[in-house]
Amino acid sequence: MSEKKGILQRLAEGPVVGDGSMCFILEKRGYAKAGPWTPEAVIEYPDAVLQLHKEYVRSGADVVQTASFYSNDDKLAYGRKGEEVIHTSAEINDAACKLAKKAADENGCLVCGGFSPVPSYKKSGVEAARVEYRKQAKVYQEHDVDFVMAEFFHDINEIELCASEMKKLNKPIALCMRVGLMGDVNGVSPEECAIRMAKTGAEIIGTNCSYDTDTSLKVMKRIVNALKKEDLHPYLICQPIGYVCPDAENSPIGFYSLIEYPLCLDPRSMTRIEAHKFAREAWEIGVRYIGGCCGFEPHHIRAIAQELAAERGRKPPVEDMAQAFGGEYFKTSLVSDIASGETATREYWMNMKPGFGRPFNPSCSKPKEVKFN
Amino acid sequence: MSEKKGILQRLAEGPVVGDGSMCFILEKRGYAKAGPWTPEAVIEYPDAVLQLHKEYVRSGADVVQTASFYSNDDKLAYGRKGEEVIHTSAEINDAACKLAKKAADENGCLVCGGFSPVPSYKKSGVEAARVEYRKQAKVYQEHDVDFVMAEFFHDINEIELCASEMKKLNKPIALCMRVGLMGDVNGVSPEECAIRMAKTGAEIIGTNCSYDTDTSLKVMKRIVNALKKEDLHPYLICQPIGYVCPDAENSPIGFYSLIEYPLCLDPRSMTRIEAHKFAREAWEIGVRYIGGCCGFEPHHIRAIAQELAAERGRKPPVEDMAQAFGGEYFKTSLVSDIASGETATREYWMNMKPGFGRPFNPSCSKPKEVKFN
Amino acid sequence: MSEKKGILQRLAEGPVVGDGSMCFILEKRGYAKAGPWTPEAVIEYPDAVLQLHKEYVRSGADVVQTASFYSNDDKLAYGRKGEEVIHTSAEINDAACKLAKKAADENGCLVCGGFSPVPSYKKSGVEAARVEYRKQAKVYQEHDVDFVMAEFFHDINEIELCASEMKKLNKPIALCMRVGLMGDVNGVSPEECAIRMAKTGAEIIGTNCSYDTDTSLKVMKRIVNALKKEDLHPYLICQPIGYVCPDAENSPIGFYSLIEYPLCLDPRSMTRIEAHKFAREAWEIGVRYIGGCCGFEPHHIRAIAQELAAERGRKPPVEDMAQAFGGEYFKTSLVSDIASGETATREYWMNMKPGFGRPFNPSCSKPKEVKFN
Amino acid sequence: MSEKKGILQRLAEGPVVGDGSMCFILEKRGYAKAGPWTPEAVIEYPDAVLQLHKEYVRSGADVVQTASFYSNDDKLAYGRKGEEVIHTSAEINDAACKLAKKAADENGCLVCGGFSPVPSYKKSGVEAARVEYRKQAKVYQEHDVDFVMAEFFHDINEIELCASEMKKLNKPIALCMRVGLMGDVNGVSPEECAIRMAKTGAEIIGTNCSYDTDTSLKVMKRIVNALKKEDLHPYLICQPIGYVCPDAENSPIGFYSLIEYPLCLDPRSMTRIEAHKFAREAWEIGVRYIGGCCGFEPHHIRAIAQELAAERGRKPPVEDMAQAFGGEYFKTSLVSDIASGETATREYWMNMKPGFGRPFNPSCSKPKEVKFN
Repeated sequence: MSEKKGILQRLAEGPVVGDGSMCFILEKRGYAKAGPWTPEAVIEYPDAVLQLHKEYVRSGADVVQTASFYSNDDKLAYGRKGEEVIHTSAEINDAACKLAKKAADENGCLVCGGFSPVPSYKKSGVEAARVEYRKQAKVYQEHDVDFVMAEFFHDINEIELCASEMKKLNKPIALCMRVGLMGDVNGVSPEECAIRMAKTGAEIIGTNCSYDTDTSLKVMKRIVNALKKEDLHPYLICQPIGYVCPDAENSPIGFYSLIEYPLCLDPRSMTRIEAHKFAREAWEIGVRYIGGCCGFEPHHIRAIAQELAAERGRKPPVEDMAQAFGGEYFKTSLVSDIASGETATREYWMNMKPGFGRPFNPSCSKPKEVKFN
Repeated sequence: MSEKKGILQRLAEGPVVGDGSMCFILEKRGYAKAGPWTPEAVIEYPDAVLQLHKEYVRSGADVVQTASFYSNDDKLAYGRKGEEVIHTSAEINDAACKLAKKAADENGCLVCGGFSPVPSYKKSGVEAARVEYRKQAKVYQEHDVDFVMAEFFHDINEIELCASEMKKLNKPIALCMRVGLMGDVNGVSPEECAIRMAKTGAEIIGTNCSYDTDTSLKVMKRIVNALKKEDLHPYLICQPIGYVCPDAENSPIGFYSLIEYPLCLDPRSMTRIEAHKFAREAWEIGVRYIGGCCGFEPHHIRAIAQELAAERGRKPPVEDMAQAFGGEYFKTSLVSDIASGETATREYWMNMKPGFGRPFNPSCSKPKEVKFN
Repeated sequence: MSEKKGILQRLAEGPVVGDGSMCFILEKRGYAKAGPWTPEAVIEYPDAVLQLHKEYVRSGADVVQTASFYSNDDKLAYGRKGEEVIHTSAEINDAACKLAKKAADENGCLVCGGFSPVPSYKKSGVEAARVEYRKQAKVYQEHDVDFVMAEFFHDINEIELCASEMKKLNKPIALCMRVGLMGDVNGVSPEECAIRMAKTGAEIIGTNCSYDTDTSLKVMKRIVNALKKEDLHPYLICQPIGYVCPDAENSPIGFYSLIEYPLCLDPRSMTRIEAHKFAREAWEIGVRYIGGCCGFEPHHIRAIAQELAAERGRKPPVEDMAQAFGGEYFKTSLVSDIASGETATREYWMNMKPGFGRPFNPSCSKPKEVKFN
Repeated sequence: MSEKKGILQRLAEGPVVGDGSMCFILEKRGYAKAGPWTPEAVIEYPDAVLQLHKEYVRSGADVVQTASFYSNDDKLAYGRKGEEVIHTSAEINDAACKLAKKAADENGCLVCGGFSPVPSYKKSGVEAARVEYRKQAKVYQEHDVDFVMAEFFHDINEIELCASEMKKLNKPIALCMRVGLMGDVNGVSPEECAIRMAKTGAEIIGTNCSYDTDTSLKVMKRIVNALKKEDLHPYLICQPIGYVCPDAENSPIGFYSLIEYPLCLDPRSMTRIEAHKFAREAWEIGVRYIGGCCGFEPHHIRAIAQELAAERGRKPPVEDMAQAFGGEYFKTSLVSDIASGETATREYWMNMKPGFGRPFNPSCSKPKEVKFN
């Protein structure tokens, strides 16, 4: 693994493609619970987790994130409420690292060790939270992951605390907050969050989860401008959700406020074409690390890799089966039953407005109202 | 395997749950080509195919269909146009049987060997077609599959021919046509198709593919009435597509006429709730074998198994992770961030009309016009 | 008036433009009750009725229908239930004729005396109904209207009865039924209704009310084919409603089944562009008398007259204020704030798909179920 | 007229109902040009203008605004580009006053003389603009109108100038700007616009035109808060457009940016129920003068008067024909064909979400982009 290019070198050279959703896709496949998103799957259903990792690798991801979302001991206890906690976060994260490495090795990808917020931070204070972060860090050190990422943080103060622990690992650091136009849980603006994240010394900062690609790009544009004014130059990352939800743009919790969450989001699933558009726009505004969060499936990640193939100088492994916009064979009589010559083009797919087949349903839903204390 | 209940006994006892989509889901995951739907995946990517089979088994399917759609030699040549054909249909179907058995054994499921239409029928005539069917049959005999199914046939004459070859296997037979309200490729009504399929002696008949659950159930109701009048009593099967498309109801080729086909169907994906409703209604009108075709994912199949759990006397294996409508833990404060107590109910989910998040897109699209010579 | 061309001569020469909605438009303006559609307005608010007549004349209508819908004595009693009946149908129809003539004279238009179904037909039998029709006929004779029209009939038997009374007037006769794809109140097909109407000797037959332009044209196409087969050649008339409601196509009572009826139909209002398309298609399939029923407003009628201006050899009087698709002055900088040069064209307006501004509402609604005994 | 209560007394006592759209409704009826909105109608088609005035009076309006929108000499020349200007603004405004008075007298309503922006302000400077305003003022003085209103102003500086001329009339003054969330043509915020309007000494200030009821109420809420902070207490007026267009909320020119403008706005027409909701919410946030602008029809104005009947202590004249939500007779078997007993209630109509019948059209459209120099 020593000869692999590191994350910073890759970012210096061009676009880095992140991987997609683990929790939501494992839930659809039957290996995670909607709600606690049970990271225990890495121990209980390792083949299923490994298979999904491999799909993202095959789709062109540069990075495999460990499937350790919310794997810290106090959250695990919470997720298993009323049931015995069987696996410690250390055991889970250890298994997660092994699976991520196995998949990453298939295509020379990097392993990224993930940090999530810890309930202790709010319940038991700063020191209790540090203990949790250290337990997470210890596993990533043992497995010598390529870099680490904190994600899904909703409080700039907490991610700063986490970053202070991450730094002790002497690895490149990425910090991602789930902030929308209204900022973090205390209303700290995305601009200020970005500046403060950059000032921790993290090499990569940005947003993940909660908002769709359109809202996330609006936030990233504000971040780009704010950092420029402060003369700060971290690499930028954006990993939004794969569900289209402009109606959740003005909720402080984003798509968690949707009445369809979490069981009926299917009609909001992005198309691969929408992923092409996201990748192009993200790259153009200056985002270098482009991937997905909840709801991103392999065909979305490969659309990112295909859209940016020229900038990256390579196409994803999946090209043997799936080329962008159908590829050349869509233009042959071979598939004349599906797409005629003139429609098998980038133009056709980029301009077509897909319907959703439900004339008795509305386009948007009224999100639930959420207020923080 | 000798002690497993056979398909006919299971049908006699209650609902049988079929499995879901192989082609479309493998395409999203990166292991099949949109268009030819390349069954070669069973040789080239066996882990991915096996994993998907297992997901359907875990979701509660009683049956694992061999992943051998369109695996006959003249179609394979067509699918690889311009490229060398590497694998014969015999090799592919052999591999497909092994994978299906492996997955089926995990939960005492049945293996179903699949027959697809053969291009030879139209191009080279009846005898050429027989040769192809026999090659398919030979593999299923060698592997001693539990029963056989012809599906995706669009011509009642061709499925009758295929059935005449299937009968030589001395196994239970299922026959499925992709007929909508307008009937088969020659305009033979669904009623007449059903009667003729039943008169072949096939124990199970019905429809699969091309149309969504609503249209397919309209067709099945007409079939129910027609068979009753003729005093014919085969078991009924319905395996529709998992994309909602009332706008394709009046096209003779169903969802193949959609402008979104095959790359942008995501917003039309059924929700699991729509799968619950389909399962309930199918059962009530007299369908016994209820599964899915293109676009059905594991969470749809488990919705069928969960909806009919009482009638089947058991819940699917996936219940450890995913219960119907979120299950009990949705009602605890545990997931108070996602669903409050009052919304975590069957009523909530069955009555909620999901939006699709795209106010600038229409509900429906104008299908391409298709005419047969 | 003796030199005016009669209705039959006009029909022989080219398209005849009918007028639009009286009841629904007077209701919006405050002069009629939603439900009984109180024709008493001709006595109580003559200025308002006359003004609306004049708007249709100015829009290019060839015909002014008397505002006497449902003005027969047993229906009037019904409409005023619980209140004293003040005006007899004879008084109302007399006033209606005077107003229609006054408006018609402004542009050399024809006056058409209208017959509506009578509740007596079902309640009290054929002879009671004849008495009502005769009272209607008497007024039209006294005023020497140019021709007579029976409309809104839902039972082929009743309109045949009415026609037998109309014939005694020795005037050209038009017969219109509110039949959809499922036929009349007893399920008599539109084809059979049309043939039987033609066989009464009526010179003009067709449909009005209940269904939108798309559904009505589907019905008219079936009628065209049926009459051709029977070698019958009446002039054809089509006066559909001005509300778009494909969701009501399969209801035996059409738009009366809509949950929005009668107070919330505004978002379903046709655009003038949709009226252009209706006029063109109606003319092309062979309809000669083209107008509107409930919901058609003056700008819809003028769109018909403008669409068929070449075929009619003249433009409507309203051209001084309103030309088709905005006319020439839309292309000047004059209105650069509203429409730039390139958008002020027939192509722009004919291809533009208007939105309705309510992303939280569905496109269609589930009509109420209606069954006849 | 001396015994009529004046506008300020009426506002002191409770809600004042404004009238509705003249330009757009006269255009639909065939008496005004889309674009220049030709006020010449008052001379050329006085009956049509008078009839529309009367409909608003009958609907419950307290005020009849003179139909003199954009009737100043330099705008008239502009509107008639390439044609001879036949009528001076003085002649038009004189005729407009006579018609407004005639209609107002039918129900003891007030006559309001309207001022519109003048192109001279930008083209020829402040003094040229003053000349135009004085010509408008002179006519209103001669006719001794009850109060005056400046409306449709997009520049706070210009309306201040206009107000300085209006003050010389010694009549109550209302000032309305077409400001949205982004403020006036120079980006002056709605808050600052409101404060500056109030500081002119005008008794009534607020917004009209350009934005729909939802957007306008958002703006009014901001105005309410801003005036409170400044301890300013003018009466508030809100007269938004009658087309639903959330998609135009972020355009500086509001609904003028819609691709449907001005010929295809029908599907965006408010329902009367939406007018009820607007009236209620406007009243609750503190707006006292509630009416409509472009697109408001008589049935919308009467919905305002009916919604606020209790607060006003009276129902509108139109109650003899049209009661709120259908009234009592909707509950009788009389209209059982339209609305059953249980649906003829306020609850039914207030909760029903009307569809628009066009599943192939989107909910919203992308407005044209507009930038000011």
